Amino acid sequence: MPQRPLRVAILGATGAVGQELLQLLAERHFPVGELIPLASPRSAGHPLDWQNQSLMIQPVSEAIFEGVDLVLASAGGSVSRQWAPVAAAAGAVVVDNSSAFRMDPAVPLVVPEVNPEAALTHQGIIANPNCTTILLTLALAPLHARRPIRRVVVSTYQSASGAGARAMEELRQLSRTVLEGGEPVSEVLPHSLAFNLFLHNSPLQPNGYCEEELKMLNETRKIMGIPDLRLSATCVRVPVLRAHSEAVNISFDEPFPVAEARALLGAAPGVELLENFESNRFPMPTDVTGRDPVAVGRIRQDLSDPNGLELWLCGDQIRKGAALNAIQIAELLLQGPSQGGDR
Amino acid sequence: MPQRPLRVAILGATGAVGQELLQLLAERHFPVGELIPLASPRSAGHPLDWQNQSLMIQPVSEAIFEGVDLVLASAGGSVSRQWAPVAAAAGAVVVDNSSAFRMDPAVPLVVPEVNPEAALTHQGIIANPNCTTILLTLALAPLHARRPIRRVVVSTYQSASGAGARAMEELRQLSRTVLEGGEPVSEVLPHSLAFNLFLHNSPLQPNGYCEEELKMLNETRKIMGIPDLRLSATCVRVPVLRAHSEAVNISFDEPFPVAEARALLGAAPGVELLENFESNRFPMPTDVTGRDPVAVGRIRQDLSDPNGLELWLCGDQIRKGAALNAIQIAELLLQGPSQGGDR
Repeated sequence: MPQRPLRVAILGATGAVGQELLQLLAERHFPVGELIPLASPRSAGHPLDWQNQSLMIQPVSEAIFEGVDLVLASAGGSVSRQWAPVAAAAGAVVVDNSSAFRMDPAVPLVVPEVNPEAALTHQGIIANPNCTTILLTLALAPLHARRPIRRVVVSTYQSASGAGARAMEELRQLSRTVLEGGEPVSEVLPHSLAFNLFLHNSPLQPNGYCEEELKMLNETRKIMGIPDLRLSATCVRVPVLRAHSEAVNISFDEPFPVAEARALLGAAPGVELLENFESNRFPMPTDVTGRDPVAVGRIRQDLSDPNGLELWLCGDQIRKGAALNAIQIAELLLQGPSQGGDR
Repeated sequence: MPQRPLRVAILGATGAVGQELLQLLAERHFPVGELIPLASPRSAGHPLDWQNQSLMIQPVSEAIFEGVDLVLASAGGSVSRQWAPVAAAAGAVVVDNSSAFRMDPAVPLVVPEVNPEAALTHQGIIANPNCTTILLTLALAPLHARRPIRRVVVSTYQSASGAGARAMEELRQLSRTVLEGGEPVSEVLPHSLAFNLFLHNSPLQPNGYCEEELKMLNETRKIMGIPDLRLSATCVRVPVLRAHSEAVNISFDEPFPVAEARALLGAAPGVELLENFESNRFPMPTDVTGRDPVAVGRIRQDLSDPNGLELWLCGDQIRKGAALNAIQIAELLLQGPSQGGDR
């Protein structure tokens, strides 16, 4: 990355993640020289206020990427498949929040606290992992560095934000409907999420797992560099607005003292220990909403396995689960090869 | 039980479970000769309508149990500890929904579809299990009968109803507050459940598990008669009104073909298979609200363990998780020793 203010394009600037990207660029004083908001033809032509500038949302085109240094893409897989290679060919680095390139062997899949070195191997595109996977790897990596993880069984509690801004609005609307005694009818999500929950509705694979669950398996393996990791996930959408939670059961080859796990996680980058056994207080979605760290707590020796640990975590899906992680990847590129820092 | 209409007392008649007990006694044509609603001094003296009768809610006393055949108790552990022995000494059979006597070796702990024979060994008190445990054992028992279960890892998604009618009302109220842009402040539950969730707040044990999680371990062992079953639970309260869900990972000593598990669960009493892989449709809390069966679906071979199965279930916490199971226990007593039926 050049050492001057950058020309940064946001692909999908009007979505939930796009909006968070804009906010984080400002909050984190990212060196933006020019910001180019891109969106679907429906939104193009509308104004967008950012940092006291009134910008015009533009439609995507090949020409728009000329001279762009960085593209933060969050407009879905098909948009990324079409435009990320075009932007990369024009010389930009694309940090892509979709699943389009995540399992491409030529594309690094990066959680900056876990595998920062991978980012520097990019060939124009870097993939930002699935939200639940980012949160999970932040808790797994410090433990795996001490004793190899053999198996993970994880159940998720995923907020409406994972399905986009319209799903969040639908949850609000249909909750009102239920509270008023009406019959909630969903249009964005496949079922009403109001005071209800359902298994993640991504396409099912022949093995009975849904794509979201297999993302957790495959992306965790790639990010952590454990190609034979055994992991089984059950992904569930819950009526929470924007933070995901996960119940995580982890097996090792030998006992992992809880005190040691707690010390490792307490010192881990991107992780915040939030556990008070005396007051029975552990992470909740509302603790992390709008915040950066993944909160971890209720770390305990697994009663069903002498070599197991149980833990619970919550993280903001839009922030660390998506936008923040993407910006941190871009920051890695600005920083260049590590000088032996504390990442 | 005598073969005449019974004198039935409901201890805790005004609570969420008490109300469901009243409804189920009517729905199931339970042979009630006289119904005696009992509640705290606060509610005593108030009228209660049931089956076109206006009954008077009465305070609990030793005298009130004279001549009573059956007590359905759902007023909390301390009330049961005080009054269940008194009622039993007066000759009544007490089906107790609290946790007070569940682990007492002299008290049977019964899920009628799983261990009906235990009910007939009672000495005046029969314990109704924890709600999440009832739902879980309905799915585990048919599998265990075919191949022994070695280990279970379960994560729960427990509705507000498990904390009582006031918690349900608080969830509604605080959801309105959030939708109106206000700050939700909880009084019944330890934290606001509105668009939020939290680890079950029952008292923590020195091993880091909460009581609810240990109930699942200990009660499952007792009901299923597997004293060395390995089970680890994470119990979570979610913003759903009255049905619980569970993500269940089950390990056996050998592979358990999915088709076989599906056939067993499809034929199991109290279980309803609800899985359509083509339409990606599996159990949701709203599917079972106000209904009897536990809905099971997404049965799949565990990708992380060749001897494992994963499944998902939902059941109405107030109904099968509490009131229905209690009434079914009473029905077992009416029926007497099995005549070789299909239970």
